[in-house]
Amino acid sequence: MTLTGPVLVVGTGLLGTSLGLACRRAGIEVLLSDTSSKHLRTASGLGAGRPVTGGESPQLVVVAVPPDHLGATLLAQLETTQAFVTDVGSVKSGPLREVASSATPDQLRRYVGGHPMAGSERSGPLAASASLFDGRPWAVTPHPTTDEAATALVLELARLCGAVPVVLSPEEHDRAVARTSHLPQLVSALVAGRLAGAPPEHLVLSGQGVRDVTRIAGSDPAMWQQIIGANAEAVLDVLSEVRSELDAMIAAVRSPEREALGALLAQGVAGTRAIPGKHGGPARPTATVYVAVPDHPGELARLFADAGDSGVNIEDVRIDHDPGRPMGQVELVVDEQRADELRSALESGGWQAHR
Amino acid sequence: MTLTGPVLVVGTGLLGTSLGLACRRAGIEVLLSDTSSKHLRTASGLGAGRPVTGGESPQLVVVAVPPDHLGATLLAQLETTQAFVTDVGSVKSGPLREVASSATPDQLRRYVGGHPMAGSERSGPLAASASLFDGRPWAVTPHPTTDEAATALVLELARLCGAVPVVLSPEEHDRAVARTSHLPQLVSALVAGRLAGAPPEHLVLSGQGVRDVTRIAGSDPAMWQQIIGANAEAVLDVLSEVRSELDAMIAAVRSPEREALGALLAQGVAGTRAIPGKHGGPARPTATVYVAVPDHPGELARLFADAGDSGVNIEDVRIDHDPGRPMGQVELVVDEQRADELRSALESGGWQAHR
Repeated sequence: MTLTGPVLVVGTGLLGTSLGLACRRAGIEVLLSDTSSKHLRTASGLGAGRPVTGGESPQLVVVAVPPDHLGATLLAQLETTQAFVTDVGSVKSGPLREVASSATPDQLRRYVGGHPMAGSERSGPLAASASLFDGRPWAVTPHPTTDEAATALVLELARLCGAVPVVLSPEEHDRAVARTSHLPQLVSALVAGRLAGAPPEHLVLSGQGVRDVTRIAGSDPAMWQQIIGANAEAVLDVLSEVRSELDAMIAAVRSPEREALGALLAQGVAGTRAIPGKHGGPARPTATVYVAVPDHPGELARLFADAGDSGVNIEDVRIDHDPGRPMGQVELVVDEQRADELRSALESGGWQAHR
Repeated sequence: MTLTGPVLVVGTGLLGTSLGLACRRAGIEVLLSDTSSKHLRTASGLGAGRPVTGGESPQLVVVAVPPDHLGATLLAQLETTQAFVTDVGSVKSGPLREVASSATPDQLRRYVGGHPMAGSERSGPLAASASLFDGRPWAVTPHPTTDEAATALVLELARLCGAVPVVLSPEEHDRAVARTSHLPQLVSALVAGRLAGAPPEHLVLSGQGVRDVTRIAGSDPAMWQQIIGANAEAVLDVLSEVRSELDAMIAAVRSPEREALGALLAQGVAGTRAIPGKHGGPARPTATVYVAVPDHPGELARLFADAGDSGVNIEDVRIDHDPGRPMGQVELVVDEQRADELRSALESGGWQAHR
């Protein structure tokens, strides 16, 4: 079965509206529905689709409502349409349980969960973009009785939105995001929480490390409260692992012997290497070239022009905040084998660069 | 008293050699000493100074040896020279205790601790750079009997190296870095450790958040083992705070009521806002503009040229790793007030951009 439309999008917030825009970009007819007539008008005005009237027969319904309303909205759609139904919620087991507890077998087989790993610090239809899903993983989570055609349609939807679909069971998905998303979020909040109220003369020593570790702790607490709440079981499993490891770490720091601490730190190094590298391949060894850059518009352009001329591909960039002077430090992360080449090229161009 | 030299640098690793290069850049005479004649030759060959012969009278000695040798080397320098003596170690109370336990009152008053917040993932003199300290905080940690002239000299050294000096007591310094540096390092290792051994199909869902939180966990475990070991007392204090908060978090996730979890997450938001902003001022509200960029050399240069033309200053940049296609996503962090202006400018230039 191929995705021909129409696609009905229920909920025109950031994700729903972005989905509508991406489908329209691909020439698929999109119908929109929202309990907020204001959101609906905005999404429609942006070109994400047209408001549903009720007489249409969608091929696929995508439910994009907040976690607290997900189960009920999925059930309502399975009852009122004959379409295949999916969603874009951050957690998959709970909504499936809700659907399975009330749906008929035919309704249940028309449902397949989904979770595009995309978002923004902003919300609402005005923040939407057809390119929101570009290059992002999109988890598709069939349950044992999901119709294969439903899964095929959602895989096609994900690809059409520019995402990279990944098939997992709902339970696996929830365990995966507990570890790779919800745990980092909570731990980032713990570290950041230890900075709140610290003396300013202590915080002035903050370097790039603590900024990286705490960046995501700045996200919307209300949204994360719902997400964590909906995945409490899997989150508690990994939190209890972390609690044991933290106890082991406290014992290791207290001990006059250092081997145990070294082993915990080495396990961390192994973990960073386990995260897939760019383009899904194994992580390649990279090196950082540091460059001093005056803090004016245009200087970064000049730097990247010179870096581009060197022919060395930049894998990642960081700009280090400078606590006292109008000079920034830019970190260019490149293939380890080519870092010296880049450094030399930049130095020839008059940049102060080092590794 | 002004810094006129000569400066004797003891230990020609990354920090010592960089310090020599920065002093030479400023026209200060530098003498070098190292137990490794190979490092000494390399540092000298790079232009960081000339090997000490023993007949010279340095004005200031900077000890830049590994933490485990710091106390003994400081004492030896205070005994064999009449110079003021400082160091660049990551922890300050322990070495001071060692010095105070054996030094004469005259020797003790000539010592003032220091800690430039600079480093690199590489070590050794070949990784050194005169610009390593540019714009970095440099903690200067006088004890109660430190001669004011010693403090003044080290403040001048820090400024001359391009750093921003911050005066703290040794105990305050150690508590500050336990919270802003050692805790994030350990917690990053804990989260990363939970990824080691996770199924690859789970890790493929890793987004930018977990990458940010675990980046510093990839650092050299042997070095961090020494640093944490030398600051065990202050580190244990913050680890025990985190343990209590983790217990509170586990209880909050387990609870059917969500207020407690929301409060913990909100405290994290407050903490991220407490970190000083660029150039030491209060953190300004920023917003992120996301841009899809083909993964070729030259495309970033084109993007930054267009961004530079818009006149909007880029505060930070991230390149998101793309798990399946030759298209990267670049996040441009700018003043919140000007994000829409940048987005429009980039869209006019043909870029796919969204907030």
